[in-house]
Amino acid sequence: MSVLVVGSIALDTVKTPVEEHADLLGGSASYAAVSASFFAPVQLIGVVGDDFPPEHVQFLEKRNIDLAGLQRAAGKTFRWSGEYMWDMNTRETRSVELNVFEHFTPELPAAYQQTPFVLLANIAPSLQSHVLDQMSRPKFVIADTMDLWINIARADLEALLKRVDMLILNDSEARQFTGETSLVKAGRKILTMGPRYVAIKKGEHGCLLFGENEFFSCGAYPLEDIHDPTGAGDTFAGGLAGYLAKNVHGPVQFQDLKSAVVFGSVMASYNVEAFSLERLRTLSDADVEKRYGSFCLMSQFEVIK
Amino acid sequence: MSVLVVGSIALDTVKTPVEEHADLLGGSASYAAVSASFFAPVQLIGVVGDDFPPEHVQFLEKRNIDLAGLQRAAGKTFRWSGEYMWDMNTRETRSVELNVFEHFTPELPAAYQQTPFVLLANIAPSLQSHVLDQMSRPKFVIADTMDLWINIARADLEALLKRVDMLILNDSEARQFTGETSLVKAGRKILTMGPRYVAIKKGEHGCLLFGENEFFSCGAYPLEDIHDPTGAGDTFAGGLAGYLAKNVHGPVQFQDLKSAVVFGSVMASYNVEAFSLERLRTLSDADVEKRYGSFCLMSQFEVIK
Repeated sequence: MSVLVVGSIALDTVKTPVEEHADLLGGSASYAAVSASFFAPVQLIGVVGDDFPPEHVQFLEKRNIDLAGLQRAAGKTFRWSGEYMWDMNTRETRSVELNVFEHFTPELPAAYQQTPFVLLANIAPSLQSHVLDQMSRPKFVIADTMDLWINIARADLEALLKRVDMLILNDSEARQFTGETSLVKAGRKILTMGPRYVAIKKGEHGCLLFGENEFFSCGAYPLEDIHDPTGAGDTFAGGLAGYLAKNVHGPVQFQDLKSAVVFGSVMASYNVEAFSLERLRTLSDADVEKRYGSFCLMSQFEVIK
Repeated sequence: MSVLVVGSIALDTVKTPVEEHADLLGGSASYAAVSASFFAPVQLIGVVGDDFPPEHVQFLEKRNIDLAGLQRAAGKTFRWSGEYMWDMNTRETRSVELNVFEHFTPELPAAYQQTPFVLLANIAPSLQSHVLDQMSRPKFVIADTMDLWINIARADLEALLKRVDMLILNDSEARQFTGETSLVKAGRKILTMGPRYVAIKKGEHGCLLFGENEFFSCGAYPLEDIHDPTGAGDTFAGGLAGYLAKNVHGPVQFQDLKSAVVFGSVMASYNVEAFSLERLRTLSDADVEKRYGSFCLMSQFEVIK
């Protein structure tokens, strides 16, 4: 089955302690859509300006991503610039230029309105809700969010939560959103606000998955060299959504989500190995299966006597 | 088989955002020995002053810990006082009084010299080495350490590493010791310095276990309420060593260590539920097995189709 992905499409400038690159393909929807495309057909909703390089469009097309929902507006593409500190965990945003993204309103082509799986990648919660307004009872809706919306659009986010099946956010956002320092308490509290499932991402430490009376702790794949953490969370969400669209034919069960977060983690672990989406350009399905196998090996244990 | 545990025995004053308690039983050897005693016979080496409360001695005896190596010196017991910040992760040491610990030299009773498993809990590496000097080819030696010794006794620590089978340290210490930001690189680098195995503790995020060409990632048990993180690392090390002493009859294999770090994590997860060693006073073997079972449930995953 297909996944509809909506979010930002950006040209990023990223500086790490080692390298700096400009005008990279970025944005939450770019990472999420490409990641999901390893598992299932993807429909992309977003906006780019008239400066958006044709080779990026070609890359998305090559990944069999349906671009009927891609808007092209007069003006410049959304630009983001950030810098990672020495530990590759701390990030400073150096500049944000909304450009054509400022007046973006996601509009669904008629063919997208019945799509069963929906990934509302990180954009304003009012825009995420606007996508759902145009849909006809999707089977499973996942929303990602960020600290900015918790700060400036909390009411919109709370309204959105009543309409989604799963929320994805990171550990500091979960604490900020709920006022709980314990991630277990934070996860459970979010479950009372609407979604049936919550995934709390912990960066290099993996993620926690919560369902009603159910819990799963997923370690992160241990990486020796992180070249660019940008988009790791979006790539995780895309892999998770794509895995579900490929494999779940009946109702989504907790067991499905456990496997989905592992595959999401596999995709994110590859993505951070190079700048922008470069690693995903050469990644094969066999690579994905191989690292999934390593994940199993490194996380299983038994009592021996 | 038995475990010999050497380390500090202290009277702690601990303040959290919620509570403060004074003159608690503490010290690396106290936590480690009591934790190990859930699995195997324990021999304790340490020193206390003449102010050490008899009820603490009785508690250790009740846990069947052999106290023939416990020295009683004239003067006051080692005292430590610390305060945890709101997140329960950041800790400030408020005061340290070495007292009788300042001139502590561990001396092994003859009956301890053949003990197969040795846990050198956190004390100065020169003292840890002095224990090994008195032993006759132990089967498996585990050393714990801390940032202080990396800073002021690095040469002693490096000398010790050539004589131990396994080093345990936390994530920031591993980075500090090796100059590597990647924990995977840090773990592998420490393996080249002597020990065959390294465990890097990540606090609430679990731990990483390294062997030659082998790797295991253990999640932490998710806790809703952490009352006092003091001694979590020592309790982890004690449970790990005790598990090995109980279950490993031939050479220690990587598979044994995977189970051992899970049982160590179980012990630590209980210990932080109350101040000092209070939780371990009422803990049962059935509690330990139960949480081990939860650990399995929350960490296993399978692909479903």
